Amino acid sequence: MNYIQSYYPLEDSTCFGCGYSNPLGMHVKSYWQDHEAVCRYTPGPEQTAFGSEVVYGGLLACLVDCHSVATAIAAAYAAEGRPLGTRPIIAYVTGNLNVRYLAPTPLGPELLLRAWVTEVHPKKALVACELSAEGKVTVKGETVAVRARWAA
Amino acid sequence: MNYIQSYYPLEDSTCFGCGYSNPLGMHVKSYWQDHEAVCRYTPGPEQTAFGSEVVYGGLLACLVDCHSVATAIAAAYAAEGRPLGTRPIIAYVTGNLNVRYLAPTPLGPELLLRAWVTEVHPKKALVACELSAEGKVTVKGETVAVRARWAA
Repeated sequence: MNYIQSYYPLEDSTCFGCGYSNPLGMHVKSYWQDHEAVCRYTPGPEQTAFGSEVVYGGLLACLVDCHSVATAIAAAYAAEGRPLGTRPIIAYVTGNLNVRYLAPTPLGPELLLRAWVTEVHPKKALVACELSAEGKVTVKGETVAVRARWAA
Repeated sequence: MNYIQSYYPLEDSTCFGCGYSNPLGMHVKSYWQDHEAVCRYTPGPEQTAFGSEVVYGGLLACLVDCHSVATAIAAAYAAEGRPLGTRPIIAYVTGNLNVRYLAPTPLGPELLLRAWVTEVHPKKALVACELSAEGKVTVKGETVAVRARWAA
């Protein structure tokens, strides 16, 4: 395992969107690459919006949420020069999630999410995210990730 | 059937969040009551966030999304003095979804969502939403619902 969420402590691995220990979850996987994180996800055929050729917007919000929080975490480890998952654990939770739907997202193709931290404050980080299908950006996200104090 | 989504045309009933024809969907149901819409939903035990006692924030975003769009639709019918589902069909899709997580939402209790239209423009409506658990508001949503031109 080398995706960001795989380094979450076991007790924090239950997230329906991205937790590795949730057997019914989506298992979103985010990878840190230099100064941003990327995620690839192919929605199932049931993840339809109005009409069967478009991805449900709520699912896209879930992807932006989990991927952006993972990005905040990975960026914080990188800023401290520490490998992911090392103690003390760095954790963030979502304080505000904003999702702009620029165009319908086609259902079928693999989706690509890119996210990067735009601002860091002592208690929060701002994360920008772009979701694209077949090379076209269809969704933009802005997430306020709030630093959480986890047991180290 | 007397919930708002039950009046969506069959071809627009596929939404994973609230479409009655999606067998795997969440089947969110919103009811118009005077000047607002209400929705009650009990997440399943798999809908966990970090830790097993809190509801996954992405699911809460899904609830705000579908309930707010249904609210925009029902309010538009009411403004025209027409029963839900009458022709020409009124439809909205999500243009922007903003979700503020004020406090962790406990997993287990039934959740209550209230939503109401705060502004109406020719091409969009703004919808405010509050989600509460056991009487405490834990999430606030603001949705820009964009008027869609559906085949009548």
